Amino acid sequence: MGAWPESLGALIASLTRLPGIGRRSAERIALFLVQSEPALAHQLAGAIQRAREQIHACSQCGALTETSPCELCTDPRRDSALLCVVERPTDVLSIEKSGSYHGRYHVLGGRISPLEGVEAEDLRIAELERRLQNEPIQEVILALGTDVEGEATCHYLARRLRRPGLRITRIAHGLPAGTGLEYADELTLGHALQGRREMS
Amino acid sequence: MGAWPESLGALIASLTRLPGIGRRSAERIALFLVQSEPALAHQLAGAIQRAREQIHACSQCGALTETSPCELCTDPRRDSALLCVVERPTDVLSIEKSGSYHGRYHVLGGRISPLEGVEAEDLRIAELERRLQNEPIQEVILALGTDVEGEATCHYLARRLRRPGLRITRIAHGLPAGTGLEYADELTLGHALQGRREMS
Repeated sequence: MGAWPESLGALIASLTRLPGIGRRSAERIALFLVQSEPALAHQLAGAIQRAREQIHACSQCGALTETSPCELCTDPRRDSALLCVVERPTDVLSIEKSGSYHGRYHVLGGRISPLEGVEAEDLRIAELERRLQNEPIQEVILALGTDVEGEATCHYLARRLRRPGLRITRIAHGLPAGTGLEYADELTLGHALQGRREMS
Repeated sequence: MGAWPESLGALIASLTRLPGIGRRSAERIALFLVQSEPALAHQLAGAIQRAREQIHACSQCGALTETSPCELCTDPRRDSALLCVVERPTDVLSIEKSGSYHGRYHVLGGRISPLEGVEAEDLRIAELERRLQNEPIQEVILALGTDVEGEATCHYLARRLRRPGLRITRIAHGLPAGTGLEYADELTLGHALQGRREMS
């Protein structure tokens, strides 16, 4: 021996390809799986297969869905005059969880990052322009990250999407909820001061 | 929406049942799987299925194996006069990796722990006694952990297995390789002093 039995070694190798799973975790999980009741391993394998087969990107907004167009794109109760642009499919979920938005979405699929080789053409910007032509969109809300690439992508989009009668806005940057000034970095504090609003 | 698509939610729930995988890691892994090339997810699902079906405990020693009896039990080059008793199947692998043992193994399947409801009858001790009758074993090496339960189990086994012509030994406890005295606790230092040996 001196090594794992073959099928166990193959499982460990597969597991180490997952994000955040190192060699040790992979060994721990693999041993757990082969020593637990068979139903558990079969259920996990089935769940992986089913999710991979059934989940895909919505043809319209790019969010992860089992139906295309997705429920968010087809829900008649959502405001089709509002379009929120996000980087990743999971960002849609984060905003939905907040319960403070009732418009539609558009997933870019990343942000412009020359260092990582991501150009504007690699993102779903052409699809976004097509939607601006075909849908009754009155406001595009840019909800991208606040790092350098996110900022740059916002400015690029604001310039490229500009057209008469369309508002282009950006979500507020400032202090996160529930934190004190002492934990905020200077940039966050700067944004919070610039974005100050009249108290009613 | 406001929640994950169904098959994605099911995958996340399955993943959180794995050891060391919390809600956040499960979401991250699930999103990675449904967004990566399909081959990767299918390969992982297949590896889980195959490992669960092919890996089982060796009928003789209790180690994890694809054949039973396992390669270690059937290898004629191994010394069948030596039997090393360990707690878990993975302990076999740890000792094999050290390359310093060439006898056979016996996996107990745990240690006696009244607090966790593990009694002597829950362990593979009867199987061990049967092997002592049927195999040409001259020395039983107890290689259990050094915590309270491991110590107690060693003493119990030493008493129960005692018979004429059989040596019962225990692996040395002391300072781990490559560490200084300043990192060792008192118990380890005590063991190291008691186990001191003449320098040749």
